[in-house]
Amino acid sequence: MRPFVFINVAMSADGKISTRERRQVRISGKEDFSRVDRIKAESDAIMVGIGTVLADNPSLTVKSPELRAERRSAGKDEHPVRVVVDSLGKTPPSADILHKGTGKRIVAVSRKAPLEKVEALRKHAAVIVAGDATVDLAVLLDDLYRQGVRRLMVEGGGTLIWGLFAQGLVDELQTFVGNIVIGGKDAPTPADGTGFLREEDFTRLRIIEATRFDDGLLIRWGVGKR
Amino acid sequence: MRPFVFINVAMSADGKISTRERRQVRISGKEDFSRVDRIKAESDAIMVGIGTVLADNPSLTVKSPELRAERRSAGKDEHPVRVVVDSLGKTPPSADILHKGTGKRIVAVSRKAPLEKVEALRKHAAVIVAGDATVDLAVLLDDLYRQGVRRLMVEGGGTLIWGLFAQGLVDELQTFVGNIVIGGKDAPTPADGTGFLREEDFTRLRIIEATRFDDGLLIRWGVGKR
Repeated sequence: MRPFVFINVAMSADGKISTRERRQVRISGKEDFSRVDRIKAESDAIMVGIGTVLADNPSLTVKSPELRAERRSAGKDEHPVRVVVDSLGKTPPSADILHKGTGKRIVAVSRKAPLEKVEALRKHAAVIVAGDATVDLAVLLDDLYRQGVRRLMVEGGGTLIWGLFAQGLVDELQTFVGNIVIGGKDAPTPADGTGFLREEDFTRLRIIEATRFDDGLLIRWGVGKR
Repeated sequence: MRPFVFINVAMSADGKISTRERRQVRISGKEDFSRVDRIKAESDAIMVGIGTVLADNPSLTVKSPELRAERRSAGKDEHPVRVVVDSLGKTPPSADILHKGTGKRIVAVSRKAPLEKVEALRKHAAVIVAGDATVDLAVLLDDLYRQGVRRLMVEGGGTLIWGLFAQGLVDELQTFVGNIVIGGKDAPTPADGTGFLREEDFTRLRIIEATRFDDGLLIRWGVGKR
């Protein structure tokens, strides 16, 4: 068993999530900011890859005081469980995601992660070891489910998202398409990694809805038949 | 003066125009095929980069007999002028784009193109020389305008499209977003090249329309104020 997994990503009209220097850029606007905060508050956990932690140092907290109050009155922590997929234990012990806001943190590492890194991270987070050289995402999701995570939001980056698609672990993809062109053959995209090579392997989607939003477009795609 | 330049591109939901092996894949369906054929027939010229010629060997002819007949009765060639942007003159003299269907062909090269290649291409196409090491797109568009091209369709690939955006030479971007995930950090995207690095340089778009189409979504973006 695994949680319902949905990906939330903002990309430019030409499919980039940032510049080739991985500089965080503003792709959406205020309306989308509120939407993302709300779906975050509705999730049990929020997951990012180590590349995103190192590039953006996000805290992934719920920003709206009202939404945090709602969570508290429902008997939850103010923020969803924050999960970092970090095969080699590279999360800086000072990273915002480990310190900002109350609530649980999980760092998922592989058996290749140096013990001293893992020990340092254990002071700030629960550590899940899954996989030999890279984090085994299926095992991790199974573990999260056993810890009560039913709804998991994935915020990127492209490598983690690719890993989830490659293993068929995604239920929904929410893409905000912003009204800019970034360009760059080396700029990160919503799904990086090796990519599928054969058409029969492509993940097939169906549109759930498409809505104009903040001068851009929000597309909700469902995956497969679930 | 330059023609009205519009880009037509089909990408996956994660912003890829093919796999990392540049294998041509089916992103849209029949309805979009007809749409693309129609907008092609309505254009004076259709342009691609050499990478697309080498990867896909497209003919870029108008497929519908009715649309070809319409063009003829309007006193035009059956097919729009086909233009290859090919800085080093690498278009194979046997390429379909030089042979399939009636009508004019133009190969645009830079001054770095070997003379023997240029001589070989002159047998099948008019050659425009513009730019020292790479084709100067602004000069090329100016030349096309003087030759009567008022509406230019650009079919890709990502390097040519990037070059046009980088120089502010695009009026409209038509993106078909297909219901698949391809993935791959090295897979081609609608705008490759170096990409913009600073937010203030990003090309700004506005949505003209967004329509569901063939299980995907067609987004028409206008560029700037034109």
